[in-house]
Amino acid sequence: MRDAYHEELDSIGDGLVEMARLVGSAIGRATTAMLDADLKLAENVIAADQRVDDLQHDLEAKAIALLARQQPVATDLRIVVTSLRMSADLERSGDLAQHVAKLARLRFPDRAVPHDLHATILEMGQLAQRLMAKAAEVIITKDVDLAMQLEQDDDEMDLLHRTLFQHLMDEKWKHGIETAVDVTLLGRYYERFADHAVSVAKRVVYLVTGEHADEVQQPTAVEGGV
Amino acid sequence: MRDAYHEELDSIGDGLVEMARLVGSAIGRATTAMLDADLKLAENVIAADQRVDDLQHDLEAKAIALLARQQPVATDLRIVVTSLRMSADLERSGDLAQHVAKLARLRFPDRAVPHDLHATILEMGQLAQRLMAKAAEVIITKDVDLAMQLEQDDDEMDLLHRTLFQHLMDEKWKHGIETAVDVTLLGRYYERFADHAVSVAKRVVYLVTGEHADEVQQPTAVEGGV
Repeated sequence: MRDAYHEELDSIGDGLVEMARLVGSAIGRATTAMLDADLKLAENVIAADQRVDDLQHDLEAKAIALLARQQPVATDLRIVVTSLRMSADLERSGDLAQHVAKLARLRFPDRAVPHDLHATILEMGQLAQRLMAKAAEVIITKDVDLAMQLEQDDDEMDLLHRTLFQHLMDEKWKHGIETAVDVTLLGRYYERFADHAVSVAKRVVYLVTGEHADEVQQPTAVEGGV
Repeated sequence: MRDAYHEELDSIGDGLVEMARLVGSAIGRATTAMLDADLKLAENVIAADQRVDDLQHDLEAKAIALLARQQPVATDLRIVVTSLRMSADLERSGDLAQHVAKLARLRFPDRAVPHDLHATILEMGQLAQRLMAKAAEVIITKDVDLAMQLEQDDDEMDLLHRTLFQHLMDEKWKHGIETAVDVTLLGRYYERFADHAVSVAKRVVYLVTGEHADEVQQPTAVEGGV
């Protein structure tokens, strides 16, 4: 039988997994809302982010209470502190999914994404959702190899991001400035969402190995390079 | 005489102030590099971010060591946990300043910002730098009124951000798509930088009052709304 202390630690882990599942679902639904110009779905995603914020607050309160009462050291201390960081990543991911949904709402009944970019944005949304699903799995399984895989998936996101920019920079771009601005922001939202999923996975690697994943492998990024 | 424990706590606070000063300086210099198309200055800003990252690592190591050895409770525990979050905000602000500098480097010898937006971008850069200077002052003084002021300053940033978008959406926009994309990203970098400065100040409010600043006053944001 597990003691109360370890039950509390487990419950923090459960909270993280639930947050990851919610934001993974949110980015998928936000993408659909965007591509289908589905206002109701967009509104749902926007409203649902409150649940993610509430979970983060609960999780932080639990973590701080546990630090105060149980005064964990060594590995357990690292778990609690790292959980706080993961919850910040996940909360921010929820915000980004919400931004996508808000853009869908802003442009309704129009579509923010022109037809010739539909496939790329769909891929970015699906990849973001898969990345977050894997991050949730990494939290559960603490599988370091799977965590490392996320960095490769993130390279794929960078590639999609570049494709998006190639479209934008193409002289044949005919969708005007407003759409260019929308697509630029969308690209950034997906890219940041993916970064946070990778960050969550890396933090698990840190918990398991005691080493920052950065020290093993440096991710590539187009951030600031576009 | 202060004991070793409180000296360690102080040294964490000093680290935060130093980080805030470095990233405040970085956003100012990155803006200058951008507006003047000064490659050398841009390179300096990009390289200097390493120092911010190092400070964050040091600060985290100190905070975790302090949690393990001293097992603070109540207020002291809150200070340590909140410091970890502030250092994450500041590290991210440094990244954003670096993104501005990288954009300056990417467009060199051209200027990423067209003449008619020069004044607006300059204002955004200066405001971002002032916000971070105030955030540093809030860390030092724990002045809740000053912390609340940052939210008003952030409204000013939102206004500048809107001005930027009005320029972009103006039918008379004649700078093409690439510049529109650059300006969109720049606007986002400054806005996020300001958000992090506000977040740092809010966390100080939380430390002093035990209440999240959000519960007192809700910030306005154009995030996802453009």
